Amino acid sequence: MKVRDIGEQGLLKILQRFCPPDVIGDDAAVLITEPDKSLVVTTDVLVDKVHFSEITTSPEDAGWRAVAANLSDLAAMGASPLGITVGLGLPGDIEVDWVERLYCGMSECLQKYSALIVGGDLVRAPVTTISITAFGQAHPQNIIRRHTASVGDAIVVTGVHGASRAGLELLLHPEVGQYLSEVEKQTLIKAHQRPQPRLDILPIIEKIVNKSTVSGMDSSDGLADAILQICRASNVGALIEWQKIPIPQVFKSWLDKAQAIEYTLYGGEDFELVLCLPLYGALRLVQEIPGTAVIGTITSNLQVVVHDNSEKIPDQVLTLDRGFQHF
Amino acid sequence: MKVRDIGEQGLLKILQRFCPPDVIGDDAAVLITEPDKSLVVTTDVLVDKVHFSEITTSPEDAGWRAVAANLSDLAAMGASPLGITVGLGLPGDIEVDWVERLYCGMSECLQKYSALIVGGDLVRAPVTTISITAFGQAHPQNIIRRHTASVGDAIVVTGVHGASRAGLELLLHPEVGQYLSEVEKQTLIKAHQRPQPRLDILPIIEKIVNKSTVSGMDSSDGLADAILQICRASNVGALIEWQKIPIPQVFKSWLDKAQAIEYTLYGGEDFELVLCLPLYGALRLVQEIPGTAVIGTITSNLQVVVHDNSEKIPDQVLTLDRGFQHF
Repeated sequence: MKVRDIGEQGLLKILQRFCPPDVIGDDAAVLITEPDKSLVVTTDVLVDKVHFSEITTSPEDAGWRAVAANLSDLAAMGASPLGITVGLGLPGDIEVDWVERLYCGMSECLQKYSALIVGGDLVRAPVTTISITAFGQAHPQNIIRRHTASVGDAIVVTGVHGASRAGLELLLHPEVGQYLSEVEKQTLIKAHQRPQPRLDILPIIEKIVNKSTVSGMDSSDGLADAILQICRASNVGALIEWQKIPIPQVFKSWLDKAQAIEYTLYGGEDFELVLCLPLYGALRLVQEIPGTAVIGTITSNLQVVVHDNSEKIPDQVLTLDRGFQHF
Repeated sequence: MKVRDIGEQGLLKILQRFCPPDVIGDDAAVLITEPDKSLVVTTDVLVDKVHFSEITTSPEDAGWRAVAANLSDLAAMGASPLGITVGLGLPGDIEVDWVERLYCGMSECLQKYSALIVGGDLVRAPVTTISITAFGQAHPQNIIRRHTASVGDAIVVTGVHGASRAGLELLLHPEVGQYLSEVEKQTLIKAHQRPQPRLDILPIIEKIVNKSTVSGMDSSDGLADAILQICRASNVGALIEWQKIPIPQVFKSWLDKAQAIEYTLYGGEDFELVLCLPLYGALRLVQEIPGTAVIGTITSNLQVVVHDNSEKIPDQVLTLDRGFQHF
């Protein structure tokens, strides 16, 4: 069944099943905001063949990933999600089933975090385009910014980097995984298809750290990009120790060092948080959150340097040019 | 200069000039919400050659119209705008100048209502796509819904209908305007290019009407569509008097009756409000707001009937099928 066959009203009827009935049905969605809360808003656009493709991404995974990317932005700000709006541009000959499965994936990810699809727009377009705007709330003093990193702060990552990029490679070129076990392959592929926004970190930070000392962002565009963005916004530099960055265990036997560094620093879409805070708090986070690690220190010299303790490779100075550029 | 030439970072630098510096620069935008306010969210997607085209729409007008459509949705809910996010899908060879002019148009419309561009996303896409999400706030008891129209309510429109559609026709086929004066033509064309969201109506409603008695929506998809949507949501019908609908003066000499009815009822994009409320309040609105008129009454018989007092045409029963369908 094509979208063209059932028209806008028919498609709307199907998609409204995914939305709370008391919120939808008017010109806009209404959410009660509580006193002393900040509204946090973020938006992402995904385009068929640019950001997802049928080869690597089922419609459910495309939906999950689109939502996860937005929720990750909220997590990076210290905000709890309220809901999302979905703007869909669709060619007339797209299967209705594809759209429904996309919404299933979005709903699945949202449900995990008690967030809702509260509205959207459906239009005809020559290429499938998914625009998601997510909004959340936070106490104003709990918001995490990227421009407040201080010299001497420890740099913490909340999990492994490079896994999502490796998973994508296995989907695009299955032959590169010929010496990996099925479990190893599926772990990496799942990291790519079903990334987890780290909203679980927020209550832990709130409990054990002085929030006003925490800065950071998520690593959606790569670990290197996140560190560089934080440093640029805070007018500081960083010294990263390569050996301290958590990477998938299998990288050590499977990839040569250059490839491992490439995936880990520039791969992107791991959707972990990169946080800067005083060492004492950082070590408490490492204790409380499995997989978390201190990977370096904020410095005053404005460069971001990756140092290899094994001294097999010279120090690398990271630059934004190597990150993902959209054009 | 093509977008490809300056890349994402270059384009971002240009577009950030349109955003408040203390709100942008992180993973998401933060807005302080006040106590006892509801958050109202709406979203629209516009696609090149589907929703706008170079023939009829300059980039400034495309930007203005995209923002106006979203602000009109907020007005229809009784909400004051806070800001918007903009998701842009752009081909690499689009002129940077086009994008900047688009933002100029968006900013111009937002400034009129003290709203801001608080964030966005820029991605590569084979076709230009503009996704706007607007959010506003309202006291929960002041929100206007479309499902609460009551039998006996007067139906009010806040201005003329058909002008935008006529303006589009003049842009597409200038020859149809050969017997119109330059002022007449420009008035209709401006109605199409620079529609005004009726946020100016909200304080007046608040002042002179019991808000809990008001239902309604905007007429973005046409006057017929608005009345039908309200009636369907409220499980009522309506009797509309054709002679009472404000239309551009020039329609009477310029268009035959069938054409005038077509433009007025189904033209769309006039972005007026269609409100249902008790007659006493309706007449007070008409007194206070120039151009406003009572055009009919909510009935119990579930049909929407347009009656012509001149009896030159028989009563028409409106249906949704004739409205704008996206697929």
